[in-house]
Amino acid sequence: MILNYKAIIKISGILIVILACLMLPSLLVSHIYGESDASNAFLASVIPMLVVGSIIIFTVKADFRHLKIRDGFAIVALCWTLSSLLGSFPFIISGYIPNFFDAFFETVSGFTTTGSSILTDIELLPKGLLFWRSFTHWIGGMGILVLTIALLPMLGLNGQRIVRAETTGPIFGKLTPKISESSKILYLIYFGMTILEILLLLPGDMSLYDAMINTFGSVGTGGFSNYNSSIAHYDNAYYEVVIAVFMLLAGTNFTLYYFALKSRWKDFFSDSELRLYLLIVTASMLLIALNLRFSGSYDTMGESVRFSFFQSASIITTTGYVTADFDLWPAFSKMVLFILMFIGGCSSSTGGGIKVIRILLLFKLLKRGIGIRLHPRAVISIKVNERPIPSDTLSGVVNFVFLYMGIFFVGTLLLSLENFDLITTASAVAACLGNIGPGFNLVGPVLNYSIFSDWSKFMLSLFMLAGRLELFTIILLFTRQFWNPDK
Amino acid sequence: MILNYKAIIKISGILIVILACLMLPSLLVSHIYGESDASNAFLASVIPMLVVGSIIIFTVKADFRHLKIRDGFAIVALCWTLSSLLGSFPFIISGYIPNFFDAFFETVSGFTTTGSSILTDIELLPKGLLFWRSFTHWIGGMGILVLTIALLPMLGLNGQRIVRAETTGPIFGKLTPKISESSKILYLIYFGMTILEILLLLPGDMSLYDAMINTFGSVGTGGFSNYNSSIAHYDNAYYEVVIAVFMLLAGTNFTLYYFALKSRWKDFFSDSELRLYLLIVTASMLLIALNLRFSGSYDTMGESVRFSFFQSASIITTTGYVTADFDLWPAFSKMVLFILMFIGGCSSSTGGGIKVIRILLLFKLLKRGIGIRLHPRAVISIKVNERPIPSDTLSGVVNFVFLYMGIFFVGTLLLSLENFDLITTASAVAACLGNIGPGFNLVGPVLNYSIFSDWSKFMLSLFMLAGRLELFTIILLFTRQFWNPDK
Repeated sequence: MILNYKAIIKISGILIVILACLMLPSLLVSHIYGESDASNAFLASVIPMLVVGSIIIFTVKADFRHLKIRDGFAIVALCWTLSSLLGSFPFIISGYIPNFFDAFFETVSGFTTTGSSILTDIELLPKGLLFWRSFTHWIGGMGILVLTIALLPMLGLNGQRIVRAETTGPIFGKLTPKISESSKILYLIYFGMTILEILLLLPGDMSLYDAMINTFGSVGTGGFSNYNSSIAHYDNAYYEVVIAVFMLLAGTNFTLYYFALKSRWKDFFSDSELRLYLLIVTASMLLIALNLRFSGSYDTMGESVRFSFFQSASIITTTGYVTADFDLWPAFSKMVLFILMFIGGCSSSTGGGIKVIRILLLFKLLKRGIGIRLHPRAVISIKVNERPIPSDTLSGVVNFVFLYMGIFFVGTLLLSLENFDLITTASAVAACLGNIGPGFNLVGPVLNYSIFSDWSKFMLSLFMLAGRLELFTIILLFTRQFWNPDK
Repeated sequence: MILNYKAIIKISGILIVILACLMLPSLLVSHIYGESDASNAFLASVIPMLVVGSIIIFTVKADFRHLKIRDGFAIVALCWTLSSLLGSFPFIISGYIPNFFDAFFETVSGFTTTGSSILTDIELLPKGLLFWRSFTHWIGGMGILVLTIALLPMLGLNGQRIVRAETTGPIFGKLTPKISESSKILYLIYFGMTILEILLLLPGDMSLYDAMINTFGSVGTGGFSNYNSSIAHYDNAYYEVVIAVFMLLAGTNFTLYYFALKSRWKDFFSDSELRLYLLIVTASMLLIALNLRFSGSYDTMGESVRFSFFQSASIITTTGYVTADFDLWPAFSKMVLFILMFIGGCSSSTGGGIKVIRILLLFKLLKRGIGIRLHPRAVISIKVNERPIPSDTLSGVVNFVFLYMGIFFVGTLLLSLENFDLITTASAVAACLGNIGPGFNLVGPVLNYSIFSDWSKFMLSLFMLAGRLELFTIILLFTRQFWNPDK
C-alpha cells in the first residue's frame, strides 16, 4: 500500500467532527439575527457531519505508528481540501451560492486566507453566512501557523527549516518533540491578538459583529469583508490604522512573539527577516505615497500616505483589504503592489506569497554569485542572523521560488484561455497563488472573480491551496513519483 | 590599479579601426544609391575613427600578459558600449536620428540583435543608413558567437561552460587554447549561412538589397526590417518559410553545426537542448495555431499555421520579425509568445533570452527537488546528454535566472514611472532584456519605442546590453565588489 489509508480516513473523521463544531458559532450568529435560512443551512451541514464523522472515528481502526512522509503530505492536502468541501455546504444548502464551483472557490479562499470572492454583491448574504465566510479566515490562519511551525518541518520542507534554524529560542529550537506545547503558545498569541484587535476596533461606531469580521480578516491575513467596498466602507482613519497594524503584525514571524513575550527585544529586533520586511513596507509606502501625490491622485500628502500605508500593508501581508481603488493609481504604484504580491509576509506568519526570508536568501545568493564571478575559487557561505544556512536549505528555497514562478507562468497561460486581458489574467493568478485576494483590471479591488468559468475557478482554487501549503504539498500529489512506490 | 587601463585603451583603439572598416560596405551602398547625405555621414564617421583609432594603436604601449578577470569583463562591456556609441554617429551626423539617446538606442538595438526601434517611419531613411542599421545585427550576431563560445568561458561564466561540457567535439572540447581556430570555424558557418539565405531569398521579386537586409536580421536574430510592416510587407509564404527556417537555424547552438559538418548526426540530434528547443517551437506553433483557428482570428487552419509558425520562430529565437499583428491575437496566443520571450534561443546561438539549456536545467532541478521531498536522504545528480552537471554550473544557472527575473521586475518598476499600462511596460522590458524587439500594446509589433523618454530609452539600451552580455558582464560594473580591489 502506497499510503496508510486507514489512518488517513480516521484523521478525516476527526477533522469532520472538528469542522462541524467550528460551524456552531456561525449557527449561533444566524440564530441571534433571526436568519432562519442560514440557521437551517448550518444545521443541515452540522448534523450529518457530526454523524458521519463519529461513525468514521468509532468504526475505522487505524495504526498511527507507521505514518510515512507520503502519508504526511497526503493528510495535509486532504485536510485542507476536505475542509473546503465541507465548509462550502452552508453556502450551497442555503441557496446563496448555489453553484458548487463558486461555493468551493469562496471556501478555499476563506480557509487559505486569500480573500478572493466570486460574490458580486456581498451585502445580500445573511450575517450568519458572512460570519462563517470570515471565520474560515481565522481558522485557516491558525491552521497555517500550526502547520508551518509544527507540522511541515517534520515533513522535511526545507523552507520551513530556516525558521527553526533562525528564530529559535529554547522552545522552538527543539520543536518537533514538543509539537503540542509550541502549538499551545501559538494558539495563545493568536487568540490574544484577535481579542486585542476586536477591543481596539470597538470604540467608535463599529458593531461587535463588524469588529469580529474585520479582525478575522486581518489576523488571518484573509481580507473578506462584509461590505462591497471593504474597509473603505468606514472611511475612518483610526480603523484603518488599527487594521493595517494588525495586518502587519499577522504578517510577522509568530515565533518572534515568543521573544517579545520573554522581553528578549534584541533577538526580536535583530531578526534579519523582520528588518527586511519592515524596510520593504516602509519603502513601498513612501514610494507609492510620493507617486500618488506627484501624479495628482490625491490632493494632500497626508491622504497619499494614508492610502499608500494601508494598501502596502494589505498587499505585502497578502490580506487584500481595500481602502482605495488602487487599480486607478498610476502604473508605478500598481507595479510596486504587484511586486509586493510576490514577496508576501514573513515565514511562520499567516501571510502568503514567496515570503520575505526567501527573498532575503535570494539576494544573498545573487550577491555570492557576483562575488564568484570575480573570485572563481572563493568559497562564500550564506548567513542569516549570523548563522550559516546549509546548502540543502538553499536548494529548497531555490526550488520553491522556481516552482512558484513556474506555476505563475503556466497558470497565467491556462487562465488566458478565458481570453481576458493579460493584466487581469496574470494578476488573478498572482493574487490566488499568493493568497492575496484582489488583483488588477477585471479582478481589481472593487470587482470580483465571478467573470471566470467554473473550470477556471476550480483551477484558481487549486492555486490558492498550493500557495497556502507551500506548493510542494499540492504539487507532489500530481507527480508520478508520489504515486509510484518504487521511485 | 584595479584595471589594466593601458591594455583596455589599446583594445579600444583596435576596435575603433575595425568598426570604421565595417562601415565601408554601408558607405558603398549609400554611394551606389546616390545618397549623398548618407555617404557624407559615413565619411564623417569613418575618417575621424580611422585617425583616432590609429593614433591610439601606435601611441599606447600596453602589456597584454597581465590581463585579469576584471579586465576581461571591462573589455567586453566597453567594446559593446563603444561600438554602440560610434555606430550611432552616421544616424546622428546625417540628421535622420538627431537625438543622441534615440541613435544610441537604435544602434544598441542593432548590435545586441534586439531589433527594437524608435523610428516611427523606417521607410523615410536612406538605403545606406538602413543597410548599416541591419548590418549591425550581422556584426553583433558574429560578435556574440565569438564572445559566448570563445571568450566568455575564459571569464568563468559558468552558464557557458555547459556548452563546452555538453556539445564538445575534439576541437570545442579544448576550446580555450585554440580560440582562433574555433572562431574561424564559427565565422565560416556564419558566412555560409548568410550566403545561403541570401541565395534562397533571391528567386522571386526580392531585390539583392532586401535579401541582404532580411538575411542580416535573421541570421543575427535581430529583426530590423527596411519596411514599416516588417516581413508582412512581402505577404509571401515562400519568403516567410525561408526566413523562419533561418531564424530557427540561427537560434540553434552553433557548435552543433560542427557535428553536422562532420556528419556526426547522432551527436547532433541527441543533443538535449536542441530537442527541447524543437519541442517548444513545435508545441507553441500548434497551440497558437489551434487558438487562432478556434477563436476565429483566421478563416483557415492553413493561415493559422502559417502565421503561428513564423511568429513562434521569430519570438523564441528573439529575432522579432513580424508577419501578423500578434497584439490583436487572443490572450492565450499572446501569453505563449510572452513566455517564449523569456525562454529564448539555444546557448551559443545568436539568440537571446534565458536560453533553452537553462530552462532544461531548471526543470531537472525542480524534478530533483520534488524527489528530495519524498526521499530526503537521496543524492540525485543532474545530467544533460548523459553527463553530470557540476554543482557550480548549476548555481551559475540559478543565479542567472534569478538575476534575469530580478532585472525584469526592477526594470518594469522603473519604466512604469512613464505611466503607460503595465503590459506595455513589462513587455518593453522583457523584449529589450531578451533582445527580441517588439512587445505588446504600445510597443506592439506594428508600433515602436518612440513613446519613451530619453532616460527610459537609455535604461532600455542598458537592458539590451545586459541581456546580450549574459547579464553579469554589465551588472558587475555596477557593483562595489568590482571597483573595490580589496573585495
